[in-house]
Amino acid sequence: MDAPQSNAQPRILEVRQGLLKANDLLARELRDEFQRAGLFVVSLVSGPGAGKTELLVQTLAGLAARSRRVAAVVGDLATENDARRLAAAGVPARQITTGGLCHLEAQMVRRAVEGWNLGELDYLFIENVGNLVCPASFDLGEHLRVLLFSVTEGEDKPLKYPSLINTVDVVLIAKIDLAEAVGFDRDLARRNIAEARPPAVVLEVSARTGSGLDDWIKLLENRRGLRT
Amino acid sequence: MDAPQSNAQPRILEVRQGLLKANDLLARELRDEFQRAGLFVVSLVSGPGAGKTELLVQTLAGLAARSRRVAAVVGDLATENDARRLAAAGVPARQITTGGLCHLEAQMVRRAVEGWNLGELDYLFIENVGNLVCPASFDLGEHLRVLLFSVTEGEDKPLKYPSLINTVDVVLIAKIDLAEAVGFDRDLARRNIAEARPPAVVLEVSARTGSGLDDWIKLLENRRGLRT
Repeated sequence: MDAPQSNAQPRILEVRQGLLKANDLLARELRDEFQRAGLFVVSLVSGPGAGKTELLVQTLAGLAARSRRVAAVVGDLATENDARRLAAAGVPARQITTGGLCHLEAQMVRRAVEGWNLGELDYLFIENVGNLVCPASFDLGEHLRVLLFSVTEGEDKPLKYPSLINTVDVVLIAKIDLAEAVGFDRDLARRNIAEARPPAVVLEVSARTGSGLDDWIKLLENRRGLRT
Repeated sequence: MDAPQSNAQPRILEVRQGLLKANDLLARELRDEFQRAGLFVVSLVSGPGAGKTELLVQTLAGLAARSRRVAAVVGDLATENDARRLAAAGVPARQITTGGLCHLEAQMVRRAVEGWNLGELDYLFIENVGNLVCPASFDLGEHLRVLLFSVTEGEDKPLKYPSLINTVDVVLIAKIDLAEAVGFDRDLARRNIAEARPPAVVLEVSARTGSGLDDWIKLLENRRGLRT
């Protein structure tokens, strides 16, 4: 029973590495292209329902209020709900449906931005599929990778998903308005994040109350200033 | 750039199908073994932080109060936190750490239950890795597969994860005590579940307040009665 599996494993690894290398090359090309266009690209990763889309709606509104030109591509296994939510907020948005794949890849991003004049944009946001595992290995050409943990998920998630958290620059503790209702221990969560990913910047935000969003927008503006 | 990927895809599929077939055969053997031992096996799947472990703690306590003999195996990419939480509740519990793999497989379950006298147990619970994609294709030999959606994840998750929801028998709408605080629309969620998975039984539960747990325990007892 075990034999076919132990034979199979190395082949999967080999093929995966081939896929990853092609993805990395394409991601590098994309990043160069974004850079030349003066575009700052931010990707969001999280588990399902941590609130990426709602945060994105608020973030795009905050940047638009500062006259920044923004666009978004959003990934999901199925449905176009998220792109519709963003489009309803008046933002150029495109949906990538992965048809079962649990992460976005650089080629999907490239196809999604085709036809957009990148030089006319200041920010592009990429919302990955809601998954704390699969997106870890796929560079999407972004400048900044942001992980959302919602307070409703508990304090130990940073320790449970080491591969993904090790690829991120910023951790947002989301739905902070619910912290008290769910008995969320902020200090413990921050200790766990610091242990799992020491260099990550950590912010507490609530898309619903607006708490922490100013700091988040400032962070985006600062990081963009450094890159463009 | 695309060539190596399009060549590679069929090989991955082929190898995956080999893996799946071996897993299915082993899962069938496991199910036979569980059945012979008079053991009813329930697996729990959900996204990260939907509350599987806390529900499990309450479920095991509820069954123990009815003199049922219970045990649990819990899967995670890393950490043994969950097994510790269950063991603290006085339940035989073993942790499977998958080392990066985003789902459990039948062989991991077989290894985890080695040495337990299955004939002395009434229920075995298997808590899968927190992931709404990867566990879909892997039969673990369970009799009942239960999906938890937390009200904090939003109403549209049943439509966004079609492959997984199509493998489950029961959907628990979890953390129902937070429904009002997060503006959760129960009717919409139930419509979405019914659309995605018409035959699923749907229950609303809260591990914190105990709401709905009686119905959940009754469901477990009824299903076990039908199988043993």
